[in-house]
Amino acid sequence: MKSLKPEPLTAAAFAPFGDVIEMRDDEAKDMNYGMAKRFHALAKVDASAEGGFPIISLVHSKKYAMPQQVKLIERHPLGSQAFIPVDNTPFILLVGRPGDGIESNHLRAFVTNGSQGINYHTGVWHGLLLTPFGEMTFICVDRDGAGDNCEELYFEPDDQFTLSI
Amino acid sequence: MKSLKPEPLTAAAFAPFGDVIEMRDDEAKDMNYGMAKRFHALAKVDASAEGGFPIISLVHSKKYAMPQQVKLIERHPLGSQAFIPVDNTPFILLVGRPGDGIESNHLRAFVTNGSQGINYHTGVWHGLLLTPFGEMTFICVDRDGAGDNCEELYFEPDDQFTLSI
Repeated sequence: MKSLKPEPLTAAAFAPFGDVIEMRDDEAKDMNYGMAKRFHALAKVDASAEGGFPIISLVHSKKYAMPQQVKLIERHPLGSQAFIPVDNTPFILLVGRPGDGIESNHLRAFVTNGSQGINYHTGVWHGLLLTPFGEMTFICVDRDGAGDNCEELYFEPDDQFTLSI
Repeated sequence: MKSLKPEPLTAAAFAPFGDVIEMRDDEAKDMNYGMAKRFHALAKVDASAEGGFPIISLVHSKKYAMPQQVKLIERHPLGSQAFIPVDNTPFILLVGRPGDGIESNHLRAFVTNGSQGINYHTGVWHGLLLTPFGEMTFICVDRDGAGDNCEELYFEPDDQFTLSI
């Protein structure tokens, strides 16, 4: 595969990789005496391996030019990682199933609808968060603590590909 | 005290109650090869008591009329609770220090600047999230699992007060 275009993100399509964080009316519970609705437990945070703990960070990303040449992917073997945008702007994901290695032609790309966030499950391969529609801020919920929680895999030149929109 | 007006939220003023989740330039780390900045660990999530675990939910709140008569406060003795808005709209907080009881005249009210989120530390008394500036959506990061994690305290009529903006 030498090029890849993202498909629209849906909870069903993303299920092998993680959770889509979005309001789904069938999951809402009333709270605050009817003044609010809670869309409960859209994602679980996995952060306790090897004495780790969950943290909340903010990530501010510049606008990416497209297409992008994809040279690497990464994964976090010790915990989940969620990104939820606060700018109502779409972004692009590149993911692969957990495993010891990944062929670039097994990867899938998704584009969000602007309000969707995502939670990568522990060990899911993913590309850098691509923000071609503008600079964006994300709330990030992931693991902190001891241990090596980031593995990067660089593609051989023949396995690199372009991601376009 | 029969009425209370919120003061602007700052990390220093809120420190006895929890964390302010906002971008502070002195805390940014480069990531994604210079294309993004990470404002790392602005809040820790405390969710492991009694076998609990951290979850991510969304909360959608209607617009509140003001002033509001404050009749109750609540606290979560088993975990922290974060609310981060995705609408760039201010909201109002009412908080009290952790303890076995609370006098209404020890409470403090804050108004956010629109982009700020907050994380209540475990056991901090807080009022309902007040959203008088429009309907709003929040990302909520808190604890799920067994155990009674919500205590409500109703003020006697003489201790009730109004919160205005």
